Amino acid sequence: MAVSIAHLGPSGTYAEAAALVYSNWLTQNFHQESLLCPYPSIAQTLSAVASEQADLAIVPVENSIEGSVTTTLDTLWILDNLQIQRALILPISHALISHANKIESIQTIYSHPQALAQCQAWLERHRPNAQLIPTNSTTEALQQLADDVNAGGISSQRAALLYKVPILAHPVNDHPDNCTRFWVLGLQPSTGGNYTSLAFSVHDIPGALVKPLDIFAQKGINLSRIESRPTKRSLGDYLFFIDLEADTRQSFVQSALAELRQHTDTLKVLGSYDILSKSIVDLADL
Amino acid sequence: MAVSIAHLGPSGTYAEAAALVYSNWLTQNFHQESLLCPYPSIAQTLSAVASEQADLAIVPVENSIEGSVTTTLDTLWILDNLQIQRALILPISHALISHANKIESIQTIYSHPQALAQCQAWLERHRPNAQLIPTNSTTEALQQLADDVNAGGISSQRAALLYKVPILAHPVNDHPDNCTRFWVLGLQPSTGGNYTSLAFSVHDIPGALVKPLDIFAQKGINLSRIESRPTKRSLGDYLFFIDLEADTRQSFVQSALAELRQHTDTLKVLGSYDILSKSIVDLADL
Repeated sequence: MAVSIAHLGPSGTYAEAAALVYSNWLTQNFHQESLLCPYPSIAQTLSAVASEQADLAIVPVENSIEGSVTTTLDTLWILDNLQIQRALILPISHALISHANKIESIQTIYSHPQALAQCQAWLERHRPNAQLIPTNSTTEALQQLADDVNAGGISSQRAALLYKVPILAHPVNDHPDNCTRFWVLGLQPSTGGNYTSLAFSVHDIPGALVKPLDIFAQKGINLSRIESRPTKRSLGDYLFFIDLEADTRQSFVQSALAELRQHTDTLKVLGSYDILSKSIVDLADL
Repeated sequence: MAVSIAHLGPSGTYAEAAALVYSNWLTQNFHQESLLCPYPSIAQTLSAVASEQADLAIVPVENSIEGSVTTTLDTLWILDNLQIQRALILPISHALISHANKIESIQTIYSHPQALAQCQAWLERHRPNAQLIPTNSTTEALQQLADDVNAGGISSQRAALLYKVPILAHPVNDHPDNCTRFWVLGLQPSTGGNYTSLAFSVHDIPGALVKPLDIFAQKGINLSRIESRPTKRSLGDYLFFIDLEADTRQSFVQSALAELRQHTDTLKVLGSYDILSKSIVDLADL
């Protein structure tokens, strides 16, 4: 039976591209067929798995330029039954697409706020007076472009093909090394791997944050990322999301987590997982 | 001579409300007149001060529900000459405003993405099928509401008065304790105060982050916030923004910073400052 994979839609988003990479990899390695299911928001993508409408969700976690995708972290803290199965890193290369015959005629540019932010300097240089209109995904406004030759969109080259809109400039992102890390999540326990992600809340920050970090330092466990999010209770009250270079199947990692549990208020282990190799992502012709 | 205060516009934003509180406080305490100057983005608000077009900038730093305002942090890391003069915390209470005669007729709702996110559950409950359209500020789309009786906006009650749009529901934010912290920044050295904010980059995270936190723990300096941001060089390479309950005029704080400098790549002290008392903010009739 086909595995259903929820992702942010509509068709042509980077999340869909990531889902396609994962889907191809499932087919090639496990002869597992899959079915892509677009959702209008990241929260709905994750909730679809939590409520068993879909088997897996693939969601962006952080971008090398714009940082954390906070909706993903906040939703995962609430839906505590989801486990990370795998991660993958997708290179992000934006195009300016439009039915205009030249860049200079474009008056309005639509895209997701993260994509607009990633092309800020390019847009400032080439279309300083264009109106930038944020949308819920990089592809949400693309169907409207046919009706307005003075409008453009920032999206992937793949989206340009799908929506049949000419590419006027590519790449238009300010930083060439633009990439986004995605997590594949499901209800089944994660199978283990070289990376472990955690989320925890502490009563009181000062010493309380030093202690958890010290536990990992003492055991020689590398911490590759720390991110704070508000608890939404009051200003100054935070949750922490931490990525470790560690596998929960190892006993010293388990003992570090047991020790951590004593120094945190709520601790959620989001799973141990591997990153899908770069060569698999690069080979995918997206 | 009047002090010019740059803030995110157009008129009616929460940033303008914060600027008014600060402006009133300057008048009452120092007989200092001030002039409010709206800018179309937070980056332009900060750049106006860096390029001496305005004397002060007032910008949001974090919201109790949606977390850090990343544009503020990223712009401050680049414009390294700005110093924090003071902080203030503004309660945020959103209204749904529209020329529609009832909530049920509203088809489209405009607002800043942070404001839409803060009212997510309320909107889901009352207008689940309305189209949510993100804008650059809570007030950007309000002038259009007069032309479309099926459109609404999420903004402050003050903005409803300014733009003469009826309030259909208030408050519509999901969390009652919604507030935003703002920083007032200028080119002059900060005068000192109970809070100090820093930003630094480290070569390599694992031990490198434990050490800075340990320096503060050893000296009994409370850390009230830690936030990571990408360096925009490559995924996994971060800057850290830290708030301390400490004053750089004290010698043990200066020695902690000197020690910290040895364990960081680039260290920027953004200033020591006080928070404008809650009673002053509450008294301001906004």
